[in-house]
Amino acid sequence: MENFAFYNPVKILFGKGQIANIGAEIPSDAKILITYGGGSIKSNGVYEQVKAALAGRNFLEFGGIEANPHLETLLKAVELIRAEGIDFLLAVGGGSVVDGTKFIAAAVPFEGDPWDICAKQAPLKAAIPFGAVLTLPATGSEMNTASVVTKWETQEKLFFASPLVFPKFSVLDPETTYSLPIRQVSNGIVDAYVHVMEQYLTYPANAPLQDRMAESILKTLIEEGPKVLADLHNYEARANVMWCATMALNGLIGVGVPQDWATHMIGHELTALHGIDHAQTLAIVLPNTLTVRRDRKRQKLLQYADRVWGLVDGTEDLRIDQAISKTREFFESVGVPTHLSDYGVGLDVIPKIIDRFEKRGFVALGENQDVTPKVVEKILVLCA
Amino acid sequence: MENFAFYNPVKILFGKGQIANIGAEIPSDAKILITYGGGSIKSNGVYEQVKAALAGRNFLEFGGIEANPHLETLLKAVELIRAEGIDFLLAVGGGSVVDGTKFIAAAVPFEGDPWDICAKQAPLKAAIPFGAVLTLPATGSEMNTASVVTKWETQEKLFFASPLVFPKFSVLDPETTYSLPIRQVSNGIVDAYVHVMEQYLTYPANAPLQDRMAESILKTLIEEGPKVLADLHNYEARANVMWCATMALNGLIGVGVPQDWATHMIGHELTALHGIDHAQTLAIVLPNTLTVRRDRKRQKLLQYADRVWGLVDGTEDLRIDQAISKTREFFESVGVPTHLSDYGVGLDVIPKIIDRFEKRGFVALGENQDVTPKVVEKILVLCA
Repeated sequence: MENFAFYNPVKILFGKGQIANIGAEIPSDAKILITYGGGSIKSNGVYEQVKAALAGRNFLEFGGIEANPHLETLLKAVELIRAEGIDFLLAVGGGSVVDGTKFIAAAVPFEGDPWDICAKQAPLKAAIPFGAVLTLPATGSEMNTASVVTKWETQEKLFFASPLVFPKFSVLDPETTYSLPIRQVSNGIVDAYVHVMEQYLTYPANAPLQDRMAESILKTLIEEGPKVLADLHNYEARANVMWCATMALNGLIGVGVPQDWATHMIGHELTALHGIDHAQTLAIVLPNTLTVRRDRKRQKLLQYADRVWGLVDGTEDLRIDQAISKTREFFESVGVPTHLSDYGVGLDVIPKIIDRFEKRGFVALGENQDVTPKVVEKILVLCA
Repeated sequence: MENFAFYNPVKILFGKGQIANIGAEIPSDAKILITYGGGSIKSNGVYEQVKAALAGRNFLEFGGIEANPHLETLLKAVELIRAEGIDFLLAVGGGSVVDGTKFIAAAVPFEGDPWDICAKQAPLKAAIPFGAVLTLPATGSEMNTASVVTKWETQEKLFFASPLVFPKFSVLDPETTYSLPIRQVSNGIVDAYVHVMEQYLTYPANAPLQDRMAESILKTLIEEGPKVLADLHNYEARANVMWCATMALNGLIGVGVPQDWATHMIGHELTALHGIDHAQTLAIVLPNTLTVRRDRKRQKLLQYADRVWGLVDGTEDLRIDQAISKTREFFESVGVPTHLSDYGVGLDVIPKIIDRFEKRGFVALGENQDVTPKVVEKILVLCA
């Protein structure tokens, strides 16, 4: 096991009716800004629950945060907050709203161009405190320090992370997910699955507890994901998928082990260039990442084949092939296609992505830092 | 899954050499009291590492905190802290030192008789901040809110818990465990194992991720525990057991599921009356708890038999018998005897324990609140 530091002070309020308890988590004299997305919270009852929980409190609203939240939109919230003297944010929505709110929280006290927070990884000195009411289990943003923001003007999708943007609390009420569009449910399952794979499917680091915990999440997603899709009001399955998605990316399964994240870096470019949903890009890229990099991932691929998919017969190469096929089939079975062609995108995207990586001074990705632009190209060719 | 709240802000610094980093975790102007036990930290190099990390800082020492820390000893530290204006504690040792330091931290600002914190579960308003350098993986105290203190005068061993006594940080350096007496290594493995069982072996609550995470810890202890005992300087095995012990009782595997803890409550009395080590009492009581309460624990016993011990053949009752036997054999195999007679204790202890429970107004324990004094008696008879 590698040395590590672990710290995660996010308070989780999980279960039916927990939105009613947010008042106690927000300082009583706070001037609050509720941030949200396209307005689904107004049709599914979540907005009403939040308003009831904040009755008598001082709050304003800021809606319209997009999927893959746009810098341009978030900066409008920053302006509003500065003008109104807001001192607490409440993100109500999915990972994009939470990610966007993290950026807003960091940008308000930031001196200089806020895009530098992502583009130059500019160090942060402060952030406005915020909480979250999560309505879409997927990104894990509700219990981590990471945020991904898209600069629309230049079609760049970039990342920042800081312990200053841990949510103070996150409410996870599985009932709020009942009304999600199926596509978002499917995406959430794949997103959580690939988050685990990025931290698990690398090389052995003699960290058997972390391995087994990662496998626990994968097996639970494989078991519970289809139950959600078969019965959209299955509370227990919704609850289990929701908790899996949070546990997939709150830092815990990744302590003391190598991590990959090449699939994410490649996927981000597909979203930035073609607007393919984040999870869809992961479903496209991951199986081919595993295929192209199977030699250096060999031992973990065999462990994954055995423990997650029960594949123990046949040659090593056969079991690895089968495990990769099973992974792809799982993504397809929950409704996420795994080929670029399924999204109307051709291989002409490849030189554009390579070019973008090279322009950003990119050398190599992955747990062994061996995913060069040439390897990215090999992976993307298989994504056709 | 049941509703839950989860919050754990303890910062973990894990691995070789991490003691050197504690200076940055303690406010620079703090007046520090280092608390420790019988002095083993002075012979194994840990004390020197701590002193080096605090070079130039303002600190005093308080040694002599016993296993099952005595109220009488801890109150001396409280006096010293009040007299010296200490404002940060650093516990260096095992679970008893950490538990004792939690009590000290809570008792210093407490108005009234500090024993009320345990005896009357008196509410706390404040506690002195503290960090920990853990040298004995076992209790999980380094990453939770709980503390158990013994009042020597009355032979009472009682518990308190409060979010105010979360350590600010805990250092887990597996190398500090190399010089532990074998008995403490063995005890630590059993202690962590039973902590998991108290949260896992109850009844199904449709919480498959929590179940699998609990099983992950059990399987890792079964695998790694014997490796530590076979080679006391096996860093990787030490690290894995250490992380298991912390994860076993930091709250995470217990979210949203029923919990038992009857084995602990019975075990505490054996320690209080006969001084049997905490983990030894658990090894004595747990197999018989499972035997006596097998009907209501039936479904989880079968799951445990299958997933942890690979027992899938034969009747249900046979598999349950085998799983309980395997559990007992595991405890014995890591060097912890499982019968009262192994510790020179006879069945005359039973009426004393029942009497103590009844005097404390005890009605029933366990996840179904059905472990009455009569059931406790049945369990203890089997412990002979």
